[in-house]
Amino acid sequence: MEFSISQIAAMLGGKITGDGSEKIGMLAKIQDAKKGHIAFLSNPKYEQFIYTTNASAVIVKKDFQAKKNISCTLILVDDPYSSFTTLLEHYHRLISFQKTGIEQPSFIGDNSITGSGIYRGAFSYIGSNVKIGDNVKIYPLVFIGDNTTIGDNTILHPNVKLYAGTQVGANCVIHAGTVVGSDGFGFAPQEDGTYKTIPQLGNVLIEDNVTIGANTTIDCATLFGDATIIRKGVKMDNLIQIAHNVEIGKNTVIAAQTGISGSTKIGENCVIAGQVGIAGHLVIANKTSVGAQAGIGKSFTEEGQRLFGSPVIDVKAFFRSYAVFKQLPDINYRLRQLEKKIRGATTSTPDTASNGSDT
Amino acid sequence: MEFSISQIAAMLGGKITGDGSEKIGMLAKIQDAKKGHIAFLSNPKYEQFIYTTNASAVIVKKDFQAKKNISCTLILVDDPYSSFTTLLEHYHRLISFQKTGIEQPSFIGDNSITGSGIYRGAFSYIGSNVKIGDNVKIYPLVFIGDNTTIGDNTILHPNVKLYAGTQVGANCVIHAGTVVGSDGFGFAPQEDGTYKTIPQLGNVLIEDNVTIGANTTIDCATLFGDATIIRKGVKMDNLIQIAHNVEIGKNTVIAAQTGISGSTKIGENCVIAGQVGIAGHLVIANKTSVGAQAGIGKSFTEEGQRLFGSPVIDVKAFFRSYAVFKQLPDINYRLRQLEKKIRGATTSTPDTASNGSDT
Amino acid sequence: MEFSISQIAAMLGGKITGDGSEKIGMLAKIQDAKKGHIAFLSNPKYEQFIYTTNASAVIVKKDFQAKKNISCTLILVDDPYSSFTTLLEHYHRLISFQKTGIEQPSFIGDNSITGSGIYRGAFSYIGSNVKIGDNVKIYPLVFIGDNTTIGDNTILHPNVKLYAGTQVGANCVIHAGTVVGSDGFGFAPQEDGTYKTIPQLGNVLIEDNVTIGANTTIDCATLFGDATIIRKGVKMDNLIQIAHNVEIGKNTVIAAQTGISGSTKIGENCVIAGQVGIAGHLVIANKTSVGAQAGIGKSFTEEGQRLFGSPVIDVKAFFRSYAVFKQLPDINYRLRQLEKKIRGATTSTPDTASNGSDT
Repeated sequence: MEFSISQIAAMLGGKITGDGSEKIGMLAKIQDAKKGHIAFLSNPKYEQFIYTTNASAVIVKKDFQAKKNISCTLILVDDPYSSFTTLLEHYHRLISFQKTGIEQPSFIGDNSITGSGIYRGAFSYIGSNVKIGDNVKIYPLVFIGDNTTIGDNTILHPNVKLYAGTQVGANCVIHAGTVVGSDGFGFAPQEDGTYKTIPQLGNVLIEDNVTIGANTTIDCATLFGDATIIRKGVKMDNLIQIAHNVEIGKNTVIAAQTGISGSTKIGENCVIAGQVGIAGHLVIANKTSVGAQAGIGKSFTEEGQRLFGSPVIDVKAFFRSYAVFKQLPDINYRLRQLEKKIRGATTSTPDTASNGSDT
Repeated sequence: MEFSISQIAAMLGGKITGDGSEKIGMLAKIQDAKKGHIAFLSNPKYEQFIYTTNASAVIVKKDFQAKKNISCTLILVDDPYSSFTTLLEHYHRLISFQKTGIEQPSFIGDNSITGSGIYRGAFSYIGSNVKIGDNVKIYPLVFIGDNTTIGDNTILHPNVKLYAGTQVGANCVIHAGTVVGSDGFGFAPQEDGTYKTIPQLGNVLIEDNVTIGANTTIDCATLFGDATIIRKGVKMDNLIQIAHNVEIGKNTVIAAQTGISGSTKIGENCVIAGQVGIAGHLVIANKTSVGAQAGIGKSFTEEGQRLFGSPVIDVKAFFRSYAVFKQLPDINYRLRQLEKKIRGATTSTPDTASNGSDT
Repeated sequence: MEFSISQIAAMLGGKITGDGSEKIGMLAKIQDAKKGHIAFLSNPKYEQFIYTTNASAVIVKKDFQAKKNISCTLILVDDPYSSFTTLLEHYHRLISFQKTGIEQPSFIGDNSITGSGIYRGAFSYIGSNVKIGDNVKIYPLVFIGDNTTIGDNTILHPNVKLYAGTQVGANCVIHAGTVVGSDGFGFAPQEDGTYKTIPQLGNVLIEDNVTIGANTTIDCATLFGDATIIRKGVKMDNLIQIAHNVEIGKNTVIAAQTGISGSTKIGENCVIAGQVGIAGHLVIANKTSVGAQAGIGKSFTEEGQRLFGSPVIDVKAFFRSYAVFKQLPDINYRLRQLEKKIRGATTSTPDTASNGSDT
């Protein structure tokens, strides 16, 4: 996974000053870089480092004028920061997709097919009747149940578990330890106080370009033919709970440790912070923003609301109320003072009895 | 796992109209069903679909009178919905228990015994001196530590981890990624600011008919001979934390992401919603109901209370107070107005000084 | 792992009364102990049990005077409780480190080296260029990515996942299912409503003497050369979320289900309770104490504060305010009563209009 400086310059459409033949193996900050690394200089505050850096190459603005001797090779571009970002993305993709081949022992059941460029790590398990696309990366200890389908370029990090029947789209990333397709939490109370399990027979459908963090759980839908659905472009963090029959709309972002209860439908382009709880059978409109630790117990069908608190209210209203909450002991004191004064001021009237509710 | 329509009718005690020989492989909704599926018609609103469905068989009420031609086979029963539910349960049980045999590679230690009808998935690990009952299903990548016992008909989904010494009863279901028997969180503060680990030497006891969701964690008890106990019939959801020496009473239900701290004892037939936190060394009475995101910091020993809020109070009291919380800015305003008026009305008295607490 | 009573007495510096040759296999409470067990007697309330216990040996104070016949062997020491605790710790360490050798199948990549006394469980996976110290215990189904380093005497319980590049110190314990090094949650919003993934190229650094619970997640840092850092002596519980670039200071303790957002720096010797949420880019001073379910949205840079509530305030202030919160319906009532009286008392003045905000 090494490239020459010339190859990198060509990729960025940049011009080289110095030796373009050296190999680059890593990207680094200009102040930390070592031989074999490439760095960039965008902010003039960091210019001092270009004269001392050990980097083999530095990406600079094409009109950069050195004030001292420079020992590294320069790549001259229009926008060094943007070029470096492009490089980071290329590098990240290379790293993510570099693993190929089949490590042993690994397991694959009957009638399962995999595309080209696949990686199947050691101790990964693929059940029967599974269809896996091209360039899919299945890290060690992954479990893929029977009748599952996985689209092209999807990465399953170590020990992801997909229950039988799960459908995952293309270009998805699922991080380590996440469980997709576990039983929905459905139990019917019986007269003797016990509970009877309601069979969970649906599945989970994850569309394209979805990213899911580590140790998250997504339950399957209850009925045959129904699915818990994660729409295109959704980004989910770690330790999130998605219950049966939930639907998360396109491009919605959900932070860590949030939980969404059964059959709730979240709109598109929502931003849901961490540790939020959303009750079941609700509808949350597109572009809703929900603050950390919020609790939602009813539907919000107007787009673009900003919610906070538990139970949630409008974020500004919450903070106005919370400001007064902090003064409550004082408010209580002031109220008592007023009551005393009023009693004093009105002692000549018959209504002097305490209202009896001053507990 | 296919049955003929005749076999299904016999199982349901129903009568057949049409060809009973066709094989059925799946259950479906009447509007979605395909050839080889069985559906049911209970609600008259759906009657239209029976004339167009592709299902091979439909379960109907025994007095059903068709208004048009029907191409599928009918099974006539007393209560189609209840019959379909029965069928769902049979089907679910069949699916759950269909896996048998030992996939390779899998690992089993010395002196461990397994009953008949067992499934041991590839990459499952069974330690030494383990006793496993009949019809136990151990999915791929499960870890079962030394000296563990597991009762009949229990299902361990992929990658369940049971630490050494765990005891699991019969007819339990534990979902993927759940950890049973990890160390309790016990550390003794030292004078130099560091902490010394308190050895955790107890185990976890899970009784019969318990269901536990995915990626949940249950810590072992601290002392030898002690156990963290999950009583008969408990139903737990995903991502729940149960600390050392906790006891969860019979038939209690706990929703996702709830955490229960060390040595707390939860009663029987409680219903605990999601993201609830319960502090350590408490007692919660039978039939207590706890609302989502509630925080419990003291014992509630009276049965049947309904709690809400953090810290919890009675649910109705919470919502009455919360209604006023939302009006707090207005209440503050009204109080100031009154103070102004009183100051005006009482200026002729000596007590005109501000109370000084109006911050 | 059996010792004779003589060996145990020697270890504790105690004197024996009776037969020192019997083998001891377990520690137990005096009232529960069986043959082959050792117990202790410290509290005189339990003296009755020493005359009936089945324990093979009991640790007693050196001046203990039996009032009846005793059938078990005695070990006489200065402080029986402290001796028993010492024994517990020895025993715990023995149990923790008893596994050695390499179970098959297991996987190790190119250029990876392991020290002496290692345990590599079946289905454990070690990538390439990994350096592992002496006496490291790698339980079954553990995943260790490429370029990882692990210090001496560290225990990785079943199915711990360390992403490539993770650094773990000496004497650490990481419990089952925990994920270290998953991608930070970084996405750049695009004009069309989609999100672009920000490459996560840093790693996680865990220093010495750190304990981490089960199914916890720790994300890697965003940039090359940066690390999410868990300092020496930190103790973390189950199901905790640590985001990218967080730093947890020395000897800080964090209870279950707490989440800490990106780039926040927690001080040393803090105590953070369960289900706490801390927002990103904050600084929390040393010795801060945070109550359960608290929500922190700003930095607290003064040492030793005790915080509670969501958003947090001083713990005492919170409970004073919460006491009044519970009375809010009554306060609202009293305020209305006063308003009525004032209106009555001031009807002769022109200002009798309602303030209009009484909603």
